[in-house]
Amino acid sequence: MNIVIIGGAGFLGQKLARALVARGRLNGQPVRRITLADVTDPVGIEGAVPVDTVQCDITDPASVARVITDETQVVYHLAAVVSSHAEEAFEEGMQINLHGTLNILERCRALGTAPLLIFTSSLAVYGGEVPDPITEVSLLNPQNSYGTQKAVGELLVNDYARKGYIDGRGVRLPTISIRPGKPNRAASSFMSSILREPLNGQGTNCPVDEDFRHYYLSPRKCVENLIRVAEISAGDLGGNRILQMPGRTLSIRQMIDAMTAVAGPEPARLISWQPEEAVRRIVGGWRFDIHADRALALGLEVDGSFEENVRAYIEDDRPGG
Amino acid sequence: MNIVIIGGAGFLGQKLARALVARGRLNGQPVRRITLADVTDPVGIEGAVPVDTVQCDITDPASVARVITDETQVVYHLAAVVSSHAEEAFEEGMQINLHGTLNILERCRALGTAPLLIFTSSLAVYGGEVPDPITEVSLLNPQNSYGTQKAVGELLVNDYARKGYIDGRGVRLPTISIRPGKPNRAASSFMSSILREPLNGQGTNCPVDEDFRHYYLSPRKCVENLIRVAEISAGDLGGNRILQMPGRTLSIRQMIDAMTAVAGPEPARLISWQPEEAVRRIVGGWRFDIHADRALALGLEVDGSFEENVRAYIEDDRPGG
Ligand SMILES: NC(=O)c1ccc[n+]([C@@H]2O[C@H](COP(=O)([O-])OP(=O)(O)OC[C@H]3O[C@@H](n4cnc5c(N)ncnc54)[C@H](O)[C@@H]3O)[C@@H](O)[C@H]2O)c1
Ligand SMILES: NC(=O)c1ccc[n+]([C@@H]2O[C@H](COP(=O)([O-])OP(=O)(O)OC[C@H]3O[C@@H](n4cnc5c(N)ncnc54)[C@H](O)[C@@H]3O)[C@@H](O)[C@H]2O)c1
Repeated sequence: MNIVIIGGAGFLGQKLARALVARGRLNGQPVRRITLADVTDPVGIEGAVPVDTVQCDITDPASVARVITDETQVVYHLAAVVSSHAEEAFEEGMQINLHGTLNILERCRALGTAPLLIFTSSLAVYGGEVPDPITEVSLLNPQNSYGTQKAVGELLVNDYARKGYIDGRGVRLPTISIRPGKPNRAASSFMSSILREPLNGQGTNCPVDEDFRHYYLSPRKCVENLIRVAEISAGDLGGNRILQMPGRTLSIRQMIDAMTAVAGPEPARLISWQPEEAVRRIVGGWRFDIHADRALALGLEVDGSFEENVRAYIEDDRPGG
Repeated sequence: MNIVIIGGAGFLGQKLARALVARGRLNGQPVRRITLADVTDPVGIEGAVPVDTVQCDITDPASVARVITDETQVVYHLAAVVSSHAEEAFEEGMQINLHGTLNILERCRALGTAPLLIFTSSLAVYGGEVPDPITEVSLLNPQNSYGTQKAVGELLVNDYARKGYIDGRGVRLPTISIRPGKPNRAASSFMSSILREPLNGQGTNCPVDEDFRHYYLSPRKCVENLIRVAEISAGDLGGNRILQMPGRTLSIRQMIDAMTAVAGPEPARLISWQPEEAVRRIVGGWRFDIHADRALALGLEVDGSFEENVRAYIEDDRPGG
């Protein structure tokens, strides 16, 4: 099985690749080769499965065609520019998130091999005057361009799958926390920083109140779920190929308490609490009362507790850990 | 006020242009010029308002740029290839319905004048395992490529409006019956033919049972509503710029009874009842339990009865009438 991960230099692409190398199998078949494709150079991965790294810009159809070939059985499409970025740079967001996704779908269609394609959508497809709880049959009503582009991707994945051009699946990821590394241009960036920086011994600011609630999943579970999504039989998925990946609704206070339970009282003292209006305005409209019953029934999983997320960060990602 | 109607050679484009010429005003302002733009040559219209006709292929950005200029205040985007056509010719559907819509949106954005843009969507955005009734907050879950492309158009119109690139509005049209002229490549084509052909003294076949129900509006009310949509104040529309245009749920039997009430018993005798499996398969999944409360509250209207639709056909459209 040849697997291409587009966005393979990214946070989840790298973790997914490592998990697939460690596993060595997908859908009952041996993984023969993994190709990490990204516009920035992906970090290579050592292991029992050969991992190629290749430059690819999904806004260029020819570049996509070099990466997805008739030898590709599985495509993970993780490439994107995130929420605040797509909001500030509208054209870039459209080119990468919308046309880039179309280029990938069109390449798969042109091949005629109907590869398995897994697309990562986002909670940003939800919003506006849609009643809680958010379920599998709630209107997608994005309130920013990133969410719009992800919702378009979902619709197209469903249609290309229905036509038999791909074996398509999409998952709306919860906000993945704790994300390692530097803050990024997602409006959700602080939802990792407020834990990551203190766990790394650094100060950080929380721009919202401690009772701000949101929907989360750990990187570990997210990667397990991304693999599980590829292994669900097409028949079990039915007509709608898009799933809400399950998460857990937590307040900032609950997350900090979990950090304190795992790492003691010191980290929480490194958090300052300066309200940031710009961030509040964006995330204030985000939805957290989200039900993912279908995904749970299909075997996707949530973390047992946020303590697990904190422990996973310390074990997997903390610098010098 | 300069109004461009793209798809201006089509059924609704022609009727809309005539109504705008007769009215002479839109949104309290005099209509100075109407431009009918279409890939096939539009029929000119005589009246107090000058009507230009111009060739335009929306799949070509340069062609769109020649038609929508900084003197354009209002764009009606009615151009599309319809359901069965887009299903059989996937690429054509994508090029016209998706990329064509994007070309129009991008042209408006490039102008920087934020023109009023009215986009016509379809009931084909609904379907699959979404519970009845269909409301303003139901998931769009299209079961064909045409519906997918329309749903994408809706999302983009909302986002371009939110960004201030257009004053965008979209309306999901009910099936418009009685449509004059020849059958077209919409799967709904029979929903007009079974009345139109008999009213013209010709035989026709009804491919579904007489208890088949669907959601309808007359061309007259549709055109009035398309004008009304342009006149709703942006503030009243709120965050979601897409409305379900109201219609009436009717069985085939009720439609035929209305025809008989208006035109006597002869026309109904011209209908044969051969089941057509291909048609049944498609329209069997269509939704008819549709609520349009928001549009009704904003002043959009339904026909008083299907008798009105039959009378309107005889008065406005019956050949030699
Ligand atoms: N991490 C989260 O909390 C989260 C939540 C919801 C959805 N998602 C989605 O999951 C996917 C992966 O997320 P992530 O956190 O790993 O993001 P990331 O930003 O770490 O990785 C995305 C990768 O895409 C690459 N990329 C950008 N433009 C490209 C182009 N033109 N061609 C090729 N590659 C390009 C970037 O270089 C980057 O390496 C994204 O699609 C994201 O929208 C993530
Ligand atoms: N009539 C209905 O029952 C109904 C129902 C739901 C939605 N709609 C939508 O309303 C709109 C108008 O419907 P209609 O019944 O008048 O359709 P129509 O087919 O009569 O008119 C559509 C027009 O678009 C034009 N067109 C096609 N490709 C084009 C291109 N590349 N560039 C420029 N013009 C192009 C066609 O030449 C045609 O004149 C369409 O968008 C349709 O999808 C109609």
